[in-house]
Amino acid sequence: MNKVEHIGIAVTDIKIASLIYEKLLNTPVYKTERVAREGVQTAFLQAGPNKIELLQALDDDSPIAKFIAKKGEGIHHIAFDVTDIVAEMARLKNQGFVLLSDEPKRGADNKLVCFIHPKSANGVLIELCQEAPRPPEGGV
Amino acid sequence: MNKVEHIGIAVTDIKIASLIYEKLLNTPVYKTERVAREGVQTAFLQAGPNKIELLQALDDDSPIAKFIAKKGEGIHHIAFDVTDIVAEMARLKNQGFVLLSDEPKRGADNKLVCFIHPKSANGVLIELCQEAPRPPEGGV
Repeated sequence: MNKVEHIGIAVTDIKIASLIYEKLLNTPVYKTERVAREGVQTAFLQAGPNKIELLQALDDDSPIAKFIAKKGEGIHHIAFDVTDIVAEMARLKNQGFVLLSDEPKRGADNKLVCFIHPKSANGVLIELCQEAPRPPEGGV
Repeated sequence: MNKVEHIGIAVTDIKIASLIYEKLLNTPVYKTERVAREGVQTAFLQAGPNKIELLQALDDDSPIAKFIAKKGEGIHHIAFDVTDIVAEMARLKNQGFVLLSDEPKRGADNKLVCFIHPKSANGVLIELCQEAPRPPEGGV
């Protein structure tokens, strides 16, 4: 794992939370993104080489809504940056970790992502993420 | 905030958790430390510029024991590296954040630390930490 890519924090109101984390980290939200297929609105803040990702549910079926209903607002997951997500998924599966998908999925922030079940890691939801290759810009 | 210095994870058995996180991060625990005044045994693993700090309670009065009794194993806090902890504490207090101590305290891993109340940050316990100055080695 290259570094903590981001820490995901589940919040009920992303506008209020953004103001709080902007004060806390002394830096503005630099990007917001709606990820409809995951049922979340996101906002990102930078802390040196790492990011904080605030997550608000778009509807009651969102994993973030379920998390908050069960545990309240708080840290939802840790995402680690990896160089080769497919190789890392194979390595971890081989070590007995339970992956939540067989293939990497598209996540927010132009990432390929895969989650590891919290029961595999002492109650912590772990995300692997790799910067997704961008399509080539025009031919030769 | 310079970076995420570490993420603290509350576990019931630090030996078992160390084996799991060594597999997960593909790196050995590089340091263990008992911090009696905080009632914790710690183990550290590196992930690039960041660390994972596993925390096991030494007794039932430890904040980690209380956390696990209430919420189960999982992420306990996020620690941010700061250059000047006293200045940062003053800045955050002025912004309305509730600090858990008026002065920096000695933490694990040769750090001066201060915690911010989770109610100030959407349910997230935040730690500020600054590398503690080491005493000078000998005279002129």
